[in-house]
Amino acid sequence: MEERRDFIMKIVAGKNSASFSSNSGKVNTHETLLKNVLVHQVFFWLKDPDNQEARNEFEKGLQMLSTAPQILSSHIGTPVASARTVVDDSFTYSFLAIFRNKEDHDLYQNHPIHLQFLKDCQPLREKVLIFDAMD
Amino acid sequence: MEERRDFIMKIVAGKNSASFSSNSGKVNTHETLLKNVLVHQVFFWLKDPDNQEARNEFEKGLQMLSTAPQILSSHIGTPVASARTVVDDSFTYSFLAIFRNKEDHDLYQNHPIHLQFLKDCQPLREKVLIFDAMD
Repeated sequence: MEERRDFIMKIVAGKNSASFSSNSGKVNTHETLLKNVLVHQVFFWLKDPDNQEARNEFEKGLQMLSTAPQILSSHIGTPVASARTVVDDSFTYSFLAIFRNKEDHDLYQNHPIHLQFLKDCQPLREKVLIFDAMD
Repeated sequence: MEERRDFIMKIVAGKNSASFSSNSGKVNTHETLLKNVLVHQVFFWLKDPDNQEARNEFEKGLQMLSTAPQILSSHIGTPVASARTVVDDSFTYSFLAIFRNKEDHDLYQNHPIHLQFLKDCQPLREKVLIFDAMD
């Protein structure tokens, strides 16, 4: 898994190295909006979130999942603790995947890499919650 | 608002134009993982989601919010309808913001742009749900 972590896609380029376009010819250096994408946001609650073996297995699954060819970019996260009532920090893992469109998302759902993830990791989780959004 | 939409940051570069790094010297063209970021995922339910005036006001607020200087990249979305029980497509708007770290996230929370958004848009929403995740 550590070797996988060494493959890092540098797409969070930030303001300094990114390109901007504007019909007006002006450049708004604060504009950072992603457009024409489908954002797939998944939150997992493991059955036994303190079980390191289960966590390792799940992380390995998420790492593999992130290699599905339809994904433009992805993020595997754990919660940032918060005392705010509007923040849900109870999940065990999050998985964010950005697709070009609904078609790519649907292809991903049935791709062998995703099906393998479901087979390996579904038994480990208690609950999953998904939000899909398009601009 | 339409003019704002013309400012498009081209950071969803996809596999063909992105840079990769690897300690092993190999390139995994499927690797798309964002690393060393905080992913701030917010879902809003408006009090009156069918009120176009309220929607316009809220969208304007989100567009302004996306200009907060701490944000590396962001996405404003509406739900993709789904019949799957694990998918929550009941929200009105989603807002995804990627920060470099917790410090930038905390600065954003107290930034005038965010405070203005809360002042203008908080009265329009029934419910908000936030998930913050770091790798």
